[in-house]
Amino acid sequence: MTYCLGILLPSGLVLASDARSNAGIDQVARVLKLNTLTVPGERMIAIQSAGNLATTQAVVTGLWEAAGGGDPVEDLHLCRSMFEVANAVGQMLRKVTDRDGKYVEPYGDVAGSFLVSGQIKGEAPRLFQVYSAGNFVEAQPRSPFLQIGETKYGKPILDRALGPLTTLDEAAKLALLSFDATIRSNLSVGLPIDLLRCPKDSFSAQNLLTIEEHNLYWRELRNTYAGGLAALVASLDPPPPGG
Amino acid sequence: MTYCLGILLPSGLVLASDARSNAGIDQVARVLKLNTLTVPGERMIAIQSAGNLATTQAVVTGLWEAAGGGDPVEDLHLCRSMFEVANAVGQMLRKVTDRDGKYVEPYGDVAGSFLVSGQIKGEAPRLFQVYSAGNFVEAQPRSPFLQIGETKYGKPILDRALGPLTTLDEAAKLALLSFDATIRSNLSVGLPIDLLRCPKDSFSAQNLLTIEEHNLYWRELRNTYAGGLAALVASLDPPPPGG
Repeated sequence: MTYCLGILLPSGLVLASDARSNAGIDQVARVLKLNTLTVPGERMIAIQSAGNLATTQAVVTGLWEAAGGGDPVEDLHLCRSMFEVANAVGQMLRKVTDRDGKYVEPYGDVAGSFLVSGQIKGEAPRLFQVYSAGNFVEAQPRSPFLQIGETKYGKPILDRALGPLTTLDEAAKLALLSFDATIRSNLSVGLPIDLLRCPKDSFSAQNLLTIEEHNLYWRELRNTYAGGLAALVASLDPPPPGG
Repeated sequence: MTYCLGILLPSGLVLASDARSNAGIDQVARVLKLNTLTVPGERMIAIQSAGNLATTQAVVTGLWEAAGGGDPVEDLHLCRSMFEVANAVGQMLRKVTDRDGKYVEPYGDVAGSFLVSGQIKGEAPRLFQVYSAGNFVEAQPRSPFLQIGETKYGKPILDRALGPLTTLDEAAKLALLSFDATIRSNLSVGLPIDLLRCPKDSFSAQNLLTIEEHNLYWRELRNTYAGGLAALVASLDPPPPGG
């Protein structure tokens, strides 16, 4: 299972992906589910992926190989907007699933899905979710985050705490708390977590933090939050009797 | 959508169910998803239900009408253990879905599922989950809660805070916080909430608290928790820079 989260704020993007791949609980590997393509000062494109790993790798690698090749749809260097980038991902996904679907079907699900985000000069940062069907939706100020994979356990903390005025650093903290809730409730989502903060107009993927099990900040965050939450719950009155 | 929760502790049971029924968002009704049968000093049986309302009502009403009728499987007054009660629910569910399934199929899903809990004199309190197939599992000290319906949003708070030493009142509070998280993230789960605390050996369903929108305790619980959580999150350090 995978959990990928994208948060779109006026000040930029926060992206987080777990890095566990599993085809059954005894076949677990570490994979990169957050891929970036940057042209300094001009564009930063990030693709996060969930679903069939062969499918999602074929899509991302296909797009990486097509970059610079001059194809009017697939070449991410030629896309004039993030909308065109999302469309390119959707088209490549359709190509791959059309090609592989009937062969994969007897063994499992060929479907893959993506979060596509970034900024191209002249636009604000944008964030899209590309469905398995290749169509896509865009995040808006009223729904500032999108998720793929194991999305539910990590949603309540975001619904509660994320707002349009949240800073990138605050959103990054909330992203990790969302992962903490997911990891506690679903064993198949696991560390490391790749966390990327992309300030508006930075056109950079440099602020990538990979959080491993022994990461001190992660441990402290989890412990302090767990302790604080337990104290908060303990401080609340129990319900009055019924009847 | 429905959310039903059962918590089994050494000191007794805590059960909570929302009471919203919806077949599409414009067809919403209030229904009772927590039904009880008590024989003072001798047995208390609770059945919580999720899924197709016609199916679950047919099962519960069927069992209520069979109670006292002397049928060796279906008469809940004759069951010598909660295991036999769970079996009776599973059998009645199979009877209903066998009978109605092919007629309902063109319009939707006939499936229903149940939490079956309570205490029969001579046993400790027990808690079972009856699947749509009519088979069932039992809660154990290592997994002290079971959920049906919209289960995921409300699971993290229980995974974090519920332990074998939790009191009934504490568990009731956690149950409501679990519902709060679910209601915030899924509009189709809604108030009122029926909350039942059944101390061991009480054989009683009298401590039933129905929480409506205007309930002062509920409002205070939500506000205090939301405020406390926001303060806790704000107090945590943001992640260090990556790169």
